[in-house]
Amino acid sequence: MTSSFFRQASKSQIRRFAKLQLKKYRDKESLFLAEGLRTVTELLNHVPDESYLTTLFIEPEQLCRIPYKDRFREKIFLIDHEQGYRLSGTSTAQGVVGIFSQQRIPETRNTSFGKAGKSLAVALDDVQDPGNVGTIVRTAAWFGISGLICGPGTADRYNPKAVRAGAGSIFCLRHYGVDDLREELERMRRGGYEICCSSLQGTDFRDYDSWPEKMVLVIGNEANGIGQEILKIADRRVTIPHGKTGPEVESLNAAVSASILMAMLTL
Amino acid sequence: MTSSFFRQASKSQIRRFAKLQLKKYRDKESLFLAEGLRTVTELLNHVPDESYLTTLFIEPEQLCRIPYKDRFREKIFLIDHEQGYRLSGTSTAQGVVGIFSQQRIPETRNTSFGKAGKSLAVALDDVQDPGNVGTIVRTAAWFGISGLICGPGTADRYNPKAVRAGAGSIFCLRHYGVDDLREELERMRRGGYEICCSSLQGTDFRDYDSWPEKMVLVIGNEANGIGQEILKIADRRVTIPHGKTGPEVESLNAAVSASILMAMLTL
Repeated sequence: MTSSFFRQASKSQIRRFAKLQLKKYRDKESLFLAEGLRTVTELLNHVPDESYLTTLFIEPEQLCRIPYKDRFREKIFLIDHEQGYRLSGTSTAQGVVGIFSQQRIPETRNTSFGKAGKSLAVALDDVQDPGNVGTIVRTAAWFGISGLICGPGTADRYNPKAVRAGAGSIFCLRHYGVDDLREELERMRRGGYEICCSSLQGTDFRDYDSWPEKMVLVIGNEANGIGQEILKIADRRVTIPHGKTGPEVESLNAAVSASILMAMLTL
Repeated sequence: MTSSFFRQASKSQIRRFAKLQLKKYRDKESLFLAEGLRTVTELLNHVPDESYLTTLFIEPEQLCRIPYKDRFREKIFLIDHEQGYRLSGTSTAQGVVGIFSQQRIPETRNTSFGKAGKSLAVALDDVQDPGNVGTIVRTAAWFGISGLICGPGTADRYNPKAVRAGAGSIFCLRHYGVDDLREELERMRRGGYEICCSSLQGTDFRDYDSWPEKMVLVIGNEANGIGQEILKIADRRVTIPHGKTGPEVESLNAAVSASILMAMLTL
């Protein structure tokens, strides 16, 4: 099979999809852009169905490395190095850029969150680093978290850096953004959720003997933690203690704190 | 206090220290470069003594934001925007670049690792992402890990991206590099350490009723895990299980796996 079976990308395609670097255009088109062989392969492994891949741009010498070529044949377009650079704006794309549909959230989103039984959700309050957001998506998918709620100020989970850190898990987890996180948390509380804030000033999580059936774990900003508006309505504030000989380090990375707490609460 | 009390940086200073972007020069000078107000401030909070700061380059408008100005007055030099860019090669420096000494490892390094009693060390086998290495340094410092051993292929812990992810913790933890990780692990085993490899093919860590007093936790490459040479000599291979409803995500981020296991083993 030679590359002559694949079409060349057009200028208008490149122009259109390069805009997906910006959130404005991602939102408008309900698409996102994934860079690099590994990230694109991971996403292809996890697409809910074939329609989720819109277009795959690839340099001819990378063709041999990409899976599912037959399945997606009609959607594959060849690019040269300069086009790859124009699509991704960085040198990290390594000749492979995928255009995917954003997750389509089921209609039930705004009714009850999770069903009967145990449920742990995670909410992000102003988590600004896209790498942290992507890493939290990945860990949340691993631990089977019921859903991820992204409050204002939180980096777009479809930012290319977040997508890379997410390692293909963006389709494996229910997630959505809200304009007013406090309102959303209060709505969840009416649905039976306890609000648990991760905070350096919180109680050692080991001091709690039991945890509620339904809980939403809130993770805050990298430098300033969770905003006062949200802290005020918390049912619990928890912290991860230092190790026994632990020294004066101020804090853990936000994605690390989130991951440790998800592990402790689900395992 | 006005900026006229501080000297202007010279061309030769900028030329010399910009080279610290490269590991070769960092090793040669035993120095490293830290970018951005937050990272530099965190490092200043944690320097073992004043001699660890070599030079602090700062744009005049950032002066009001930096602490310890009196303490380090002689080491502060003013730069303009272009000099900041030349020092850091990125736009992330935000007008603040610190030049610091690398950790000076005590002479005892090569004798016994840790003293009597409980000790958890962490070893990195080919962990390539500097952000992951820095995040592991930060978490290891938080949990009071006895030491961090960086095997070949592992990103330099003094890479500016690793330093940023480390959030000032690079001085709060004993760490060193080795050319032959297997040899170092075998040396540690003769000193009473069990070798515990984190591996997707390992045993659920919850299946172990007890853990040895002295253990070294090995973390592997982001894509390929721990090399066969090291896996072969492992006393245990452990994995972090999926959550109960966990789906098909392949793996966790390397720094997240390391952090969850450090938390589980020290708390």
